[in-house]
Amino acid sequence: QSNITVYGIADVVGTSFNTNNAVAGNLKNQRGFDDGAVGSRIGFKGLEDLGGGLKAEFNYELGIAPTNNINQVGTTAAAGATLNNLSTRTAWVGLTSNDFGQISMGRFHALGWVFQAGSRPWGGIDPIRTMTNVQGISSNTSDRISNAIQYVSPTYAGFKVTGQYTADARANTSEQNTNDQTYVNGTAVGRQQIYLLGANYDQGPISAMAMYRHVAVPADLAGAAPTAAQRAKQEYGLRGAYDFGVAKVGAVYQRQQLKDAITINGGDYKTGYMYGGFVTVPFGAKFLATLEAAKSNGDRTQGGYGYMVNGQYLFSKRTSVYAQAGYMKMNQENASVTNLGSYGSTGIEAGKRMTGVMAGILHTF
Amino acid sequence: QSNITVYGIADVVGTSFNTNNAVAGNLKNQRGFDDGAVGSRIGFKGLEDLGGGLKAEFNYELGIAPTNNINQVGTTAAAGATLNNLSTRTAWVGLTSNDFGQISMGRFHALGWVFQAGSRPWGGIDPIRTMTNVQGISSNTSDRISNAIQYVSPTYAGFKVTGQYTADARANTSEQNTNDQTYVNGTAVGRQQIYLLGANYDQGPISAMAMYRHVAVPADLAGAAPTAAQRAKQEYGLRGAYDFGVAKVGAVYQRQQLKDAITINGGDYKTGYMYGGFVTVPFGAKFLATLEAAKSNGDRTQGGYGYMVNGQYLFSKRTSVYAQAGYMKMNQENASVTNLGSYGSTGIEAGKRMTGVMAGILHTF
Amino acid sequence: QSNITVYGIADVVGTSFNTNNAVAGNLKNQRGFDDGAVGSRIGFKGLEDLGGGLKAEFNYELGIAPTNNINQVGTTAAAGATLNNLSTRTAWVGLTSNDFGQISMGRFHALGWVFQAGSRPWGGIDPIRTMTNVQGISSNTSDRISNAIQYVSPTYAGFKVTGQYTADARANTSEQNTNDQTYVNGTAVGRQQIYLLGANYDQGPISAMAMYRHVAVPADLAGAAPTAAQRAKQEYGLRGAYDFGVAKVGAVYQRQQLKDAITINGGDYKTGYMYGGFVTVPFGAKFLATLEAAKSNGDRTQGGYGYMVNGQYLFSKRTSVYAQAGYMKMNQENASVTNLGSYGSTGIEAGKRMTGVMAGILHTF
Repeated sequence: QSNITVYGIADVVGTSFNTNNAVAGNLKNQRGFDDGAVGSRIGFKGLEDLGGGLKAEFNYELGIAPTNNINQVGTTAAAGATLNNLSTRTAWVGLTSNDFGQISMGRFHALGWVFQAGSRPWGGIDPIRTMTNVQGISSNTSDRISNAIQYVSPTYAGFKVTGQYTADARANTSEQNTNDQTYVNGTAVGRQQIYLLGANYDQGPISAMAMYRHVAVPADLAGAAPTAAQRAKQEYGLRGAYDFGVAKVGAVYQRQQLKDAITINGGDYKTGYMYGGFVTVPFGAKFLATLEAAKSNGDRTQGGYGYMVNGQYLFSKRTSVYAQAGYMKMNQENASVTNLGSYGSTGIEAGKRMTGVMAGILHTF
Repeated sequence: QSNITVYGIADVVGTSFNTNNAVAGNLKNQRGFDDGAVGSRIGFKGLEDLGGGLKAEFNYELGIAPTNNINQVGTTAAAGATLNNLSTRTAWVGLTSNDFGQISMGRFHALGWVFQAGSRPWGGIDPIRTMTNVQGISSNTSDRISNAIQYVSPTYAGFKVTGQYTADARANTSEQNTNDQTYVNGTAVGRQQIYLLGANYDQGPISAMAMYRHVAVPADLAGAAPTAAQRAKQEYGLRGAYDFGVAKVGAVYQRQQLKDAITINGGDYKTGYMYGGFVTVPFGAKFLATLEAAKSNGDRTQGGYGYMVNGQYLFSKRTSVYAQAGYMKMNQENASVTNLGSYGSTGIEAGKRMTGVMAGILHTF
Repeated sequence: QSNITVYGIADVVGTSFNTNNAVAGNLKNQRGFDDGAVGSRIGFKGLEDLGGGLKAEFNYELGIAPTNNINQVGTTAAAGATLNNLSTRTAWVGLTSNDFGQISMGRFHALGWVFQAGSRPWGGIDPIRTMTNVQGISSNTSDRISNAIQYVSPTYAGFKVTGQYTADARANTSEQNTNDQTYVNGTAVGRQQIYLLGANYDQGPISAMAMYRHVAVPADLAGAAPTAAQRAKQEYGLRGAYDFGVAKVGAVYQRQQLKDAITINGGDYKTGYMYGGFVTVPFGAKFLATLEAAKSNGDRTQGGYGYMVNGQYLFSKRTSVYAQAGYMKMNQENASVTNLGSYGSTGIEAGKRMTGVMAGILHTF
């Protein structure tokens, strides 16, 4: 009667980060144990064959914070704050037709994330993701899209198309929403409409994807004046990878264009871009070495650059140990401290550099 | 060794609601995606045969908020606020004897909920539940009872009796409690005692239930003076349904009686009632149409009325799609904005109406 | 593909506690239903054989609050406050070698907890745990250690050694941490380093363990001046049990030594100790009676004493019912109200006593 698959990842690392930050109160060094480079999770999924080429599918996946039991990270337990542990990664239900594709509703990996997942084989000290963050290309760094509907086409000759739409994605909250698209007396209250489009090609040694994201301005809906961070913007990216056998090589380019300029460092910021790449080299059947590099740039000298090298030893298809070392440096006029994502609160100041190492165990179940 | 069954429901809808509310700040229209009419959930349950007609059983069921990752809905993360995601629906452990019935402790579906579940085949835009809300008949709208003990008799000729008791149900918090029945220096601190009784008859085409609820006054326990919402009250209901084959027809009546009057619209409110009904008509093996209607009334003209029609197409026993349309109107002197339950914060003002539509996917696993 | 084991415990009790507390606002009596003496939980675990005597293992175990749906217990939803329901008990991933033992990272049962688990066969009204609390021997009452690494040796002739280390355990928060060991401009910000060592001997009728805990002073790391509760301390314990067949008898001794004295009752407190014991007597195959007693003492007459008797009837290996009665009395000069752990907020004042009874159902799945 019950046909659920329980699955997940257990991934924990020991980390050490160092910066040459100068501002008092900004982090200089940080050591400890943390959720790993790939990210611990537990999920439940199922599939029912409805006959006639039709299937019902669901997925419910939760993040695990394996090194603590803390509900909130931050200084105050603000309303609507997200859980650190058992946060919902994805939650959706859909119908899949062999001929017409899949339609589903709920919370999804945003296409920006799916795009980046192919651009960077490793997380952790991740230059591609970090340099996108510096540019504020949020479609690619927001892992999930809530309150959404998604269409995935069937795959023809390695090619498929995906579309996502949400009527209610609040700015600066990782597109995690409380309620529905809300109008008060006909006035939209500061929510965004987001359209995401992706085209994938995966055939033989080739893996490629194009991605486009459009964020509509709430003011277009006759609502409250949008803040700078809420202004309309367009983002797009192109990535490709080729597996030569002796090595797999990949490259990625992403660009963001704001409709209206915002002020950074006393001047207009409208455009930013990031480019990066990776190479993965197998040494025998058990060891993989990966090098990743990225550089970002934009108006008002936003951006920086970084390198990362990762070595992975595979005990089996499901279990490995890995070690990473990385270096990142921000542009001299880069406006603000750049966060490194999930690894604590280590940020890098303008013109400063960060070095980091981590080593961990990665187990898929 | 492990004999757990993992089960659940994945249920997501697209919704659109409209009101003719007049007060600035009250909602006029709302669109988006939301948890479905039935409600997404995941559960774990088990049963051990102890021999001699005795069994041990447990159940742990959690609600899923499939369209967001938000911990709190509301303006402040108040102490004791409930989770929107992974909230506990039920959690209990019990012993069941074939001869003497089941005794269990924990958190349960309140008998008021069990009563209503047979009165209204669909949730979502649900007149029976909404009209009960207008009357404040909380035994039927509070889904769960915490900190409780429950007895369920064996079933004889389709007939069984259920009793529930909690020593600690705080008013206006869906009977979800933090701690135990608490006395400070012998003084009860505003907690309630709730007694629930239910009698079910299910045989052949007939399904019927009677339900009684008594809420004791904390002041009876020599405690602090109760607020209006905490005053002693009695509630009861009667429902029945008959399956004619070409259609299943059901009706429900519920009534609430306060011990002491509270003031609404400048006068005494002590009594309110709700009546409603539904008819479900199968068209072939795959399609079900359901009509539900309800009307409520009470002192100070509390109440209103509503209709809902639902069409469901069944791909299988486990998977269907459905669409609903509904209309509700409040009485002219109805005191306050009436909430529609889980669908956002759309409330209806006194004398105003709401129309809504929704369409979704419902998958049981 | 998926090889997860889902397991857990469902354990609920009805309780009644009474004190002769005198201070207004302190609890006199408390009744209700609560999480049981052993503690409800659900867990997920897995093991992969990597060949060559090597295994990968993971464990993710969550606490269940079976009688409520409340996120927070307390007066304000403070930042970093822990969940009452679905709190993480353990979360780790590790590699185990038959020859060299297991190394793992994440969140663990602290060795102090493992130590006490063999000292007291029952929880609930638990004198050994309560008397340790009076002394503030936190290594033994803090159930888990976060942000940690653990080594467990192989077992030779019933003997094994375990070590745990965390670089970041905040005082007074049950060693539950938000982030990594954090330095601001090279200055540690009030985090502790904790070292735990345990040696176990389990062979035939004998079960014994020695445990040592060292908490480093943050000031040693050139950080902010530690508060009294954060000062360096050492704690150690010794326990043993022997199963005579007609009865199993056990004894435990624990001691805490602060590096710098703190002030209690107007004088220096540096040293405290607790000793206790239990006897478990089987009556036939189905019934077990257990008596537990403990006494604690220390500088400034910290401490008290208590007794508990528990009767357990086993329906099967997995399911039983049990009843407990207990008595505890604090020393006359004991400084503060002593909490009873998880059973509500009943605390005992200096010189006062508590009596309690509970009865529950315990089901393992």
